[in-house]
Amino acid sequence: MSESETLQQAEIAIVGMGLMGASLGYDLRGSCRRVVGVVRRPEAVSETLASGCVDDATLDAVAAISAADIVVLATPVRTILRQIAQWGPLLKPGAILVDMGSTKTAICRAMEALPEHVRAIGGHPMCGKEQAGLAAAEPGLYRNATFVLCPLARTDDETLQVVQHLVRHIGARPLVLDPERHDRLVAAISHLPYLAACSLVHHVMTVAEDDPTVWDVAASGFRDSSRVAASDVRMLMDILMTNRQAVLAAIDNYERSLAHLRTLLEQEQEPELRDSLEQIAQARRLWRRA
Amino acid sequence: MSESETLQQAEIAIVGMGLMGASLGYDLRGSCRRVVGVVRRPEAVSETLASGCVDDATLDAVAAISAADIVVLATPVRTILRQIAQWGPLLKPGAILVDMGSTKTAICRAMEALPEHVRAIGGHPMCGKEQAGLAAAEPGLYRNATFVLCPLARTDDETLQVVQHLVRHIGARPLVLDPERHDRLVAAISHLPYLAACSLVHHVMTVAEDDPTVWDVAASGFRDSSRVAASDVRMLMDILMTNRQAVLAAIDNYERSLAHLRTLLEQEQEPELRDSLEQIAQARRLWRRA
Repeated sequence: MSESETLQQAEIAIVGMGLMGASLGYDLRGSCRRVVGVVRRPEAVSETLASGCVDDATLDAVAAISAADIVVLATPVRTILRQIAQWGPLLKPGAILVDMGSTKTAICRAMEALPEHVRAIGGHPMCGKEQAGLAAAEPGLYRNATFVLCPLARTDDETLQVVQHLVRHIGARPLVLDPERHDRLVAAISHLPYLAACSLVHHVMTVAEDDPTVWDVAASGFRDSSRVAASDVRMLMDILMTNRQAVLAAIDNYERSLAHLRTLLEQEQEPELRDSLEQIAQARRLWRRA
Repeated sequence: MSESETLQQAEIAIVGMGLMGASLGYDLRGSCRRVVGVVRRPEAVSETLASGCVDDATLDAVAAISAADIVVLATPVRTILRQIAQWGPLLKPGAILVDMGSTKTAICRAMEALPEHVRAIGGHPMCGKEQAGLAAAEPGLYRNATFVLCPLARTDDETLQVVQHLVRHIGARPLVLDPERHDRLVAAISHLPYLAACSLVHHVMTVAEDDPTVWDVAASGFRDSSRVAASDVRMLMDILMTNRQAVLAAIDNYERSLAHLRTLLEQEQEPELRDSLEQIAQARRLWRRA
């Protein structure tokens, strides 16, 4: 059976109808035999059904997971860790387990411990917004996003191919990375920028204690620089706590970069400061063009 | 004569046809007797005329400034400082000099030293983009922006009212601040975010030396957090060098905020870290709603 046929005939259970899970539902519904959303709150059943992102919504995780050909865990990282241990063994033989958690080392380790019959692989789509939840979900969220896949030592080629097909089907670009490397890279481009943005907002909060006008002069530069500071804290706490070492190392390296620029400014070393800022501006402009 | 009539009958000279100057031209042309753009490069005369943002463009700054009722300096800060000294005295009696520089203390000090007959006031519109130059200019750039005005001790009420009218005419909101206060506030919401963004990009550059894939996993969070790092370096150098003390103080306070979050993460003080991040997220969300 081709990967395309496998996807068409699959019953898919998505655990968690937040931004990521519900958006995935929108993109898969109609392309698979059935898409079932697993929710926790009773009122979320009707909310999810009303949104139209799934064929069915249920509180009965065990039934949904046992029936599915592909199970996607779309909850915060530490919830995923509990769900792998609790529900992973309930998958039927040959079913595929994949997650969308933002850190991968702890999750892939938990997946390695699953019974032999489960075909597991780690995943992380590199997209999102600062709004969380079903209401923020939308079709096409994954289009043109990089979707990292972390095959385990035990992941067979067919599993990787089916999941790569799913990733391409929703318009994303699969990128295979080992989990430690993934975590180091996302510490640099996501977790550190989050804490940097939080520190910017915190600085403005302290300035505002004496002079609240600071919020009135804040414009688009501050808006963009600080946007991710409004992210869902629960999700971010799980990310930070499961990627502590890489995040701490990123902060330290970042602080050295900032301290270097500070020294050049303090000592009025104009040519050196200008050169550093030009190199940085150039690197940022090149990335945008890529 | 009302402020509205004063503006309609004014000949306006805008010095510098970059993003800010040319955008102002678009918004004023047709509402004033004549808008003249002063440029430095010979080829900029025809480029400026072709863009349609002014009635006339000229290399002859002295002629344009001597004839104007309102002169707007829209060049980088240290160029503005030179232009105030060089061209300020050439204004005809009763003409108004205003600037759009991003720092105000040094500029207002230079304006205070002008001959008695010049009616001067500092200005700074709180908007922009990371692209610079005529090509990036657009009508309506100032709409809904805060436009800081810094009257000098010598600035008469009529001058303030005419410039406030001009600011409202282009859709912006005038906000009167003294120059030192302006510079302290923009250090927090603009100059510090710029250096923080530069440090983020620099950190990714160092990660990329070993693993260039880091650029492939960078997504919208990194894009927004680092956007201002692509800003025009010449403009930013002038800003940083004329606001050094406030920027250094902002960096120091920011570093304390980041170090505090780092400590909470390192020591796994989850409740304290969560509380801090929640307060920050809340402050950022409240600002967006404002």
